[in-house]
Amino acid sequence: MQHFASDNYAGICPEALDYMVQCNGSGHEQAYGDDRWTARVCDRIRALFEHDCEVFFVFNGTAANSLALASLCQSYHSVICHELAHVETDECGGPEFFSNGSKLLTVKGDNGKLTPDAVERTITRRSDMHHPRPRVVTLTQATEVGTVYRPGEVGAIAEVAKRHGLKVHMDGARFANAVASLAVHPADITWRAGVDVLCFGGTKNGLAVGEAVVFFDRALATEFQYRVKQAGQLASKMRFISAPWLGLLDNDVWLRNARHSNAMARLLADRLRTIPGVRIVFPTEANAVFAEFPPQAADALRASGWRFYDFIGAGGARLMCAWDTEAETVERFAAELRTFCQAA
Amino acid sequence: MQHFASDNYAGICPEALDYMVQCNGSGHEQAYGDDRWTARVCDRIRALFEHDCEVFFVFNGTAANSLALASLCQSYHSVICHELAHVETDECGGPEFFSNGSKLLTVKGDNGKLTPDAVERTITRRSDMHHPRPRVVTLTQATEVGTVYRPGEVGAIAEVAKRHGLKVHMDGARFANAVASLAVHPADITWRAGVDVLCFGGTKNGLAVGEAVVFFDRALATEFQYRVKQAGQLASKMRFISAPWLGLLDNDVWLRNARHSNAMARLLADRLRTIPGVRIVFPTEANAVFAEFPPQAADALRASGWRFYDFIGAGGARLMCAWDTEAETVERFAAELRTFCQAA
Amino acid sequence: MQHFASDNYAGICPEALDYMVQCNGSGHEQAYGDDRWTARVCDRIRALFEHDCEVFFVFNGTAANSLALASLCQSYHSVICHELAHVETDECGGPEFFSNGSKLLTVKGDNGKLTPDAVERTITRRSDMHHPRPRVVTLTQATEVGTVYRPGEVGAIAEVAKRHGLKVHMDGARFANAVASLAVHPADITWRAGVDVLCFGGTKNGLAVGEAVVFFDRALATEFQYRVKQAGQLASKMRFISAPWLGLLDNDVWLRNARHSNAMARLLADRLRTIPGVRIVFPTEANAVFAEFPPQAADALRASGWRFYDFIGAGGARLMCAWDTEAETVERFAAELRTFCQAA
Amino acid sequence: MQHFASDNYAGICPEALDYMVQCNGSGHEQAYGDDRWTARVCDRIRALFEHDCEVFFVFNGTAANSLALASLCQSYHSVICHELAHVETDECGGPEFFSNGSKLLTVKGDNGKLTPDAVERTITRRSDMHHPRPRVVTLTQATEVGTVYRPGEVGAIAEVAKRHGLKVHMDGARFANAVASLAVHPADITWRAGVDVLCFGGTKNGLAVGEAVVFFDRALATEFQYRVKQAGQLASKMRFISAPWLGLLDNDVWLRNARHSNAMARLLADRLRTIPGVRIVFPTEANAVFAEFPPQAADALRASGWRFYDFIGAGGARLMCAWDTEAETVERFAAELRTFCQAA
Repeated sequence: MQHFASDNYAGICPEALDYMVQCNGSGHEQAYGDDRWTARVCDRIRALFEHDCEVFFVFNGTAANSLALASLCQSYHSVICHELAHVETDECGGPEFFSNGSKLLTVKGDNGKLTPDAVERTITRRSDMHHPRPRVVTLTQATEVGTVYRPGEVGAIAEVAKRHGLKVHMDGARFANAVASLAVHPADITWRAGVDVLCFGGTKNGLAVGEAVVFFDRALATEFQYRVKQAGQLASKMRFISAPWLGLLDNDVWLRNARHSNAMARLLADRLRTIPGVRIVFPTEANAVFAEFPPQAADALRASGWRFYDFIGAGGARLMCAWDTEAETVERFAAELRTFCQAA
Repeated sequence: MQHFASDNYAGICPEALDYMVQCNGSGHEQAYGDDRWTARVCDRIRALFEHDCEVFFVFNGTAANSLALASLCQSYHSVICHELAHVETDECGGPEFFSNGSKLLTVKGDNGKLTPDAVERTITRRSDMHHPRPRVVTLTQATEVGTVYRPGEVGAIAEVAKRHGLKVHMDGARFANAVASLAVHPADITWRAGVDVLCFGGTKNGLAVGEAVVFFDRALATEFQYRVKQAGQLASKMRFISAPWLGLLDNDVWLRNARHSNAMARLLADRLRTIPGVRIVFPTEANAVFAEFPPQAADALRASGWRFYDFIGAGGARLMCAWDTEAETVERFAAELRTFCQAA
Repeated sequence: MQHFASDNYAGICPEALDYMVQCNGSGHEQAYGDDRWTARVCDRIRALFEHDCEVFFVFNGTAANSLALASLCQSYHSVICHELAHVETDECGGPEFFSNGSKLLTVKGDNGKLTPDAVERTITRRSDMHHPRPRVVTLTQATEVGTVYRPGEVGAIAEVAKRHGLKVHMDGARFANAVASLAVHPADITWRAGVDVLCFGGTKNGLAVGEAVVFFDRALATEFQYRVKQAGQLASKMRFISAPWLGLLDNDVWLRNARHSNAMARLLADRLRTIPGVRIVFPTEANAVFAEFPPQAADALRASGWRFYDFIGAGGARLMCAWDTEAETVERFAAELRTFCQAA
Repeated sequence: MQHFASDNYAGICPEALDYMVQCNGSGHEQAYGDDRWTARVCDRIRALFEHDCEVFFVFNGTAANSLALASLCQSYHSVICHELAHVETDECGGPEFFSNGSKLLTVKGDNGKLTPDAVERTITRRSDMHHPRPRVVTLTQATEVGTVYRPGEVGAIAEVAKRHGLKVHMDGARFANAVASLAVHPADITWRAGVDVLCFGGTKNGLAVGEAVVFFDRALATEFQYRVKQAGQLASKMRFISAPWLGLLDNDVWLRNARHSNAMARLLADRLRTIPGVRIVFPTEANAVFAEFPPQAADALRASGWRFYDFIGAGGARLMCAWDTEAETVERFAAELRTFCQAA
């Protein structure tokens, strides 16, 4: 049975699995990333972004974000993020741990998004040594509430950051969904808009495990491999983390997967919008739908076997669509919710 | 072409890959370890050890060791290890990073092994607050130089540790090789001998990625899942890390893999021993052979395409056999070395 | 010229300085706290609190709070504090640094004070491993805005904390001011009300340097001396940190100093309240007055040589009175402000 | 009674105490180092070194060394030090804690001193990411065993360090003793010889508390004040840490104090050398004497009330002379030891 609890309930997409099997058949390979598969994937990512970026693979999103931020910060620095950002709410203090104490300065903003003004106010609020010095702005793209930043929005925030000497990090656990939603070139919402480091998510897009940390500013990547190693994020059999990315990159499967999950979210939103008693909370721009409905309906859905999360901090249920979510699942969920809402 | 550089040059063994493919076909699964596959593997590991242990999966050995040690230590504690231990020489300061400063106190010992006397001397050498307080003894089983601790040796060290209030950790990156070599029950060199926490290596035994941290003392595992999460070691699609363990555990494939790599190492040692100019440095008890031979021969081997490491700190070449090392590869390497030694 | 910028603009009170001079005349003393002066002060603090507490001396308040919190927390834990707490706003990430990542969960509350309900909501909001686990509630007494918690208020918060398994820490940088203000026994707002650890401030009360960390629950103090040493907070010539406390404790000089600074704050508030255009923002219960007045008046005061801080986060000027603040200074400041307000 | 246990058994020298008293009489002063006294001392230290260095004051030597090293290192870096260095043996893991994991790579060397060759071997032994990357060489001047580095020795080590891109740190807890012993200009064994950062010890030279961190390369001091603040090392009433340095610097009292303690050590060594059964272990070049004598004599001395430390790692007793050690004390100790050795 499929669920809407998380896009990581889904498995490995066939193209990625094929590469895992294929690279297992190629005999002994050098370890720790010195293999041919990893070199090939890195080149492909450089081609994708049309930029000579530096690429590293780590195991998951918490590590990708935390290591990237730690590489940009000293312990007495701070990171400006939206109050609903994953780094703030769902990484169990990972960024603080990896950086040995860098503080997250949270900012409010509509639809899960930072604004240039709010960022600037936070940067300039304090400038004394008794408060951690702002050093990075981090954007989540797509956001935790399923919205996306337009290229101009990214650029405007990056401009503020750069003007004050800050770096720009992008948590792209659902970067594919953002690119698919905006129908832009991936460079247009990253380095061309001022992003220095992107954590490019693979897991939610159809991999078993593994995210790419992409440094558009190569100088920032100096010695990053030591950091990755020390933090227990260097895969010995690296090819099994990297090669499956070829499955995503060939024929733009990553975009196909993202377009599909986005489409399923739109379908779900469309269906829910027609149900009396249901309210869609945020614009549905990526693969998430946030909906409020009667608690009795939520209980009934769960009793019926459905799994989904309440969204702490924003109200309602968070419903995530994955690369493999079927339209039939969406229709069935909507139908059951309609029934339960009528009964409520 | 196969190499002797590292047992992690090898790929995934077929039984493990089968489970990865199989669990991918089972539809949506709960994330972060709340899936059926992970529960099943944990039960199987408990059955294997005949103990109600607590089991966690993390991505690699550096993380497994570092997190286990960090869970046993505060920052001002110290960890007693052999001077050639992986935690000391090859984890880039991972244990110090995860623990925020716990110091490794290194001890010399023949054949890469600690002795009870040396451990006790290190424990009792200082007892003032100006020196990190000893809190853990860590054993590597099999050791970094391809030897193994007998059950009585583990027990004697653990006895010293416990008498002084220390915990016992075992780095079992090659635990399977040790069990296969000793032909003992896995419990006999772990909890029955006084080991509190085992890092049970899967990667070198035929997995793509993933090690199990096994707490025989469940009280020590309290809140360990938070530590794993914060440190970026919690797999969202956990089943792809855990399910392949079933491939190792079914029909004792883990022991079959280990016996094979051990046998290849013995074969290699036997062949090398007959070559004039070659000296075997350590007893060949697991899947490693350490051999000294003329530098010209080493250069010639590398020019011929072979990859292997010098063993810094112990002299000579480190030759590792993997679960898939073929006898033909061993024979060919030995024959080439013989030729190059004659020429030297 | 005296200022209202901070109570740490003041120097050493004569009684404390006398002890510093006196203990310097007593010849060689054992280092690192094994001296007779330190033992004597610890006994005096135990007598003061009527409790067999464990006492440590560290150099300043950031260290006292951060070390105490780090001793109660693992890196994946969280600390619940008021959003205006010093640990959150003015220690440059010290608590996160010392604990290697423990997160501060901030709570709003009137007059700079936590309430039991708000604390309980924060404790129970999340219980999954993706969010740092609440482990400590920290109260600031007197608060950052010059108010004080009544014994019953401390007790009610501690009751909530204990019910959920949390510890209670008190930042007592101005503990003396709170005791003087409430006219209670110091035990009544600490261990009798459920406080586990108190950081008892000496610097703002008339010392040159040094705060006492008082563990009412001795079990929590296990190995704390190692933590102090590792963190660079162990004074070698400890007697010069500890002995001056005798100057504060003899004849209740600490209370006399606190009563004086509290009285000066009340005088200042009384005077300001009568000036048209000035608004007192928080109840004046300790040695701080928070006042809003026209920006032109603030500028004029500063041009006239006065130093004081804007209070970021709460509005207005923060005016602190010290153990040596003279009534004449208060009157002169008020008179000048009156003039400048009339001109504004 | 005076002892030879540690030079920090001594108190505050009169000139330093005078400044503490004097600056207490000067009324309110700005906090956190923005006072006139601190500015004055910083200028004096710049004049002393004939260099436009950046100066910070922290509370003790562990903090000074650890903060300086942390400012030079990332967590995955390593610090090369002598195996008897204080940072390795007596700071309870402080450097590892402040740096979040930087590893100390210890080097053997006669008379407690590093040699250029040994340093270079350690730098070049490993260059892979599995081992912490060497980033700093730290010298202790005077060393832990009471010897001193000549200007040429410092320069030769610094040359090796710089050639490999490493920075040079000097632990100068007894820097005064080294300068006095060598009769050189302080610049000649610091920046002119290639030292980047000096921890200039005040406590053992006659202060109550406080060490200066002197950055000869100002670029390395960027944001160091944030690091100091976050680590709980920023004194609010800074003038009481800084002003007493004027007592040391006026009329070269720091050198007078050091010359005296050095002279007392030479006197002690001269006396001990004539006692049958006593062996002086290291050259007596600063204020320490290391002597081997019969255990019965050591026991008898302690029974007679004398305090001194065994020197773990080097054998024998460590006998430290302080700025106030009296010749009479030396003669009495030597006489008693002579008696006890005859009896042994």
